[in-house]
Amino acid sequence: MIQSLKTVMRRAAEVRPLVHTITNNITVNDCANIILAAYGAPTMAQDVREVAEITARSHALVLNLGALRAQEAMLRAGRQAGALGLPVVLDPVGAGASSLRMEISRTLMQELDIAVIRGNASEIRALALGSETTLGVAASESDRVTEENLADTIAMLRAFSQRTGAVVCQTGRIDLVTDGVRTAVLRGGCDMMSRITGTGCMLTALIGVYCGASPDCIFEGAVAAVGALSVCGEQADHKVQQMGEGTASFRTRLIDAVSMLTPEVLAEQIKLEII
Amino acid sequence: MIQSLKTVMRRAAEVRPLVHTITNNITVNDCANIILAAYGAPTMAQDVREVAEITARSHALVLNLGALRAQEAMLRAGRQAGALGLPVVLDPVGAGASSLRMEISRTLMQELDIAVIRGNASEIRALALGSETTLGVAASESDRVTEENLADTIAMLRAFSQRTGAVVCQTGRIDLVTDGVRTAVLRGGCDMMSRITGTGCMLTALIGVYCGASPDCIFEGAVAAVGALSVCGEQADHKVQQMGEGTASFRTRLIDAVSMLTPEVLAEQIKLEII
Amino acid sequence: MIQSLKTVMRRAAEVRPLVHTITNNITVNDCANIILAAYGAPTMAQDVREVAEITARSHALVLNLGALRAQEAMLRAGRQAGALGLPVVLDPVGAGASSLRMEISRTLMQELDIAVIRGNASEIRALALGSETTLGVAASESDRVTEENLADTIAMLRAFSQRTGAVVCQTGRIDLVTDGVRTAVLRGGCDMMSRITGTGCMLTALIGVYCGASPDCIFEGAVAAVGALSVCGEQADHKVQQMGEGTASFRTRLIDAVSMLTPEVLAEQIKLEII
Repeated sequence: MIQSLKTVMRRAAEVRPLVHTITNNITVNDCANIILAAYGAPTMAQDVREVAEITARSHALVLNLGALRAQEAMLRAGRQAGALGLPVVLDPVGAGASSLRMEISRTLMQELDIAVIRGNASEIRALALGSETTLGVAASESDRVTEENLADTIAMLRAFSQRTGAVVCQTGRIDLVTDGVRTAVLRGGCDMMSRITGTGCMLTALIGVYCGASPDCIFEGAVAAVGALSVCGEQADHKVQQMGEGTASFRTRLIDAVSMLTPEVLAEQIKLEII
Repeated sequence: MIQSLKTVMRRAAEVRPLVHTITNNITVNDCANIILAAYGAPTMAQDVREVAEITARSHALVLNLGALRAQEAMLRAGRQAGALGLPVVLDPVGAGASSLRMEISRTLMQELDIAVIRGNASEIRALALGSETTLGVAASESDRVTEENLADTIAMLRAFSQRTGAVVCQTGRIDLVTDGVRTAVLRGGCDMMSRITGTGCMLTALIGVYCGASPDCIFEGAVAAVGALSVCGEQADHKVQQMGEGTASFRTRLIDAVSMLTPEVLAEQIKLEII
Repeated sequence: MIQSLKTVMRRAAEVRPLVHTITNNITVNDCANIILAAYGAPTMAQDVREVAEITARSHALVLNLGALRAQEAMLRAGRQAGALGLPVVLDPVGAGASSLRMEISRTLMQELDIAVIRGNASEIRALALGSETTLGVAASESDRVTEENLADTIAMLRAFSQRTGAVVCQTGRIDLVTDGVRTAVLRGGCDMMSRITGTGCMLTALIGVYCGASPDCIFEGAVAAVGALSVCGEQADHKVQQMGEGTASFRTRLIDAVSMLTPEVLAEQIKLEII
């Protein structure tokens, strides 16, 4: 597995995949910068008149539910991606926080061939079980994965993956990635990651880079991206502690770390268990 | 007073208020990050189809006039906040710079129950007196508060506060906060704060955090936020001078400072006079 | 020439031009911050109901094609700028990447009096020759300027400038600026500049600052901006290497450098040849 992750990372730097990202205004700059940091090329077009044409030139499509007004654009781009066999990565930001987001998520999942769904515990739970959360775009404390509910959570994610045919990534203190059969458990990252906006969106964009460059290795691409951000989060956290800095410096140092990460360091520092 | 400010800050970290912020695309990322830095949770939804539902789950609502296209969303969210008794904080960005902004500001103030209005000297002057400015979103030199016009300015702000029922904050080289009776005069901050975009918007978001966690202490919440950003501005300025850095590093270090500020340091460093 | 560049920079700090910038959501914050860093004042209004009024108070207008939805606002603001003789700077982001962008670029160029067009090799090529590119908003490798195709590229740019009446800036590893007669060749910058989003947009905004303050020196304003960003890129790159940092720190240090650049340092470090 570790070998595949290194290959996925190396391929991204060779292919320099064009990642068409339809995302929200809050973190769009961070998403573009993380794609560039990982050697991809970002294109953030969301005008319905051009999205299909832009997707047709891309290696992957990332759909972020925060871009609510781009619902029609997401559908058009997604159908184009489906026609061309490009991986589509869905980030259901705030699913469960409003009925509108729930409805749009369901439409996207029904209409499109989604390769990867990446969300926090509350978002994934909302999609998988139809439940609601109460904390906007952050995960509710009650939904968080712990060592106690880990087995149940994995069972839920596996069922959700089997039902949708998508690789499912649930991220938080413990990150989980499953293709319905294999499940990766990653125990890395740091608390600082939830003290800045955009870590989730950036991770989803990074999955787009790795899966776009290796469309035949979707599970490995998703695991590599989750592992990479986790390792980079720890590096950034270490640096920030050392320099006596705060959350904004953490954001800068997180993207810095992604831009300097090598396959060797990923392989060495990732805390990965496959079950 | 100092004791109340410490309590307000402490409560924000305990409550971790969800702050529904309808704001412009320029500084939306900074606003989300400052809310997180101050231990709040941001939600930046502005689709008319979901804003009322999102507001209903929030602790405070921040309306930033830069989000012109979200005028209807601001009204819906504002009415929901009113129905639930949540504090609404208004930032009349660029009021006076165009007749459209003037008109929308007036509509929001008429239709909604505004708890706090926060703007620069030109914006507040435009709303309070109906005058125009000429410098876009920055304050005109001629509108600036000096020791000479301080008493007149305070009288104008008090009258404006009494007429609207809102706590009024005018920020600049001298920051003023009044509830129509008490007036806080804060002489802190630094020139660097006007060399980056978003300090005003971030301050308004911070007021949302403190007032959202302490809806019974609106005046204290506003003073604490103004004081906190001022103190953090001085800390960031000091660091930037020491490191030979420029304006972008100042932005990073400002948010850093907010994320590390303690009630004790606020109490020690705030330059506050209540008159 | 060097003397004129120093004058242009000095004038920007004196005039503090209000630069009305209609730009995309991805880099709008960076554009506002670079304008402030260079002593200008940003206003990013794009609502059709107010843009003409805002432009009328400005010193320059910057139109960035990434703001596709603001097409009508760009036309209105552009006509107002034309009526008042304000310099209009056009950034044809992604021209050639979609037929929609090609069409809107052509409309803007036909309808408005454009003072400066600033794009990468693929964008300028698309506009000048009607050719298409395949890499989203980045320049295609095949379009890049080399010492071998330099003379041909300059001839193309000169013809394009003569045909449109605009100063044309093509930026990349070698930056070229021509008014149809004089051509500036700038061999500076660094590879890091293409590892972050927004360098192109920021440069266009910076041209707006310098040309807005010196509307009688459009060629010099454009050359000064290209030279300034190039010099600042080298300074930021040097600092980032020295500190062992990555791409996000480069972004911060680039804006930092612009905020601290003096006319003397620009004159000393610019790598400029006029032919």
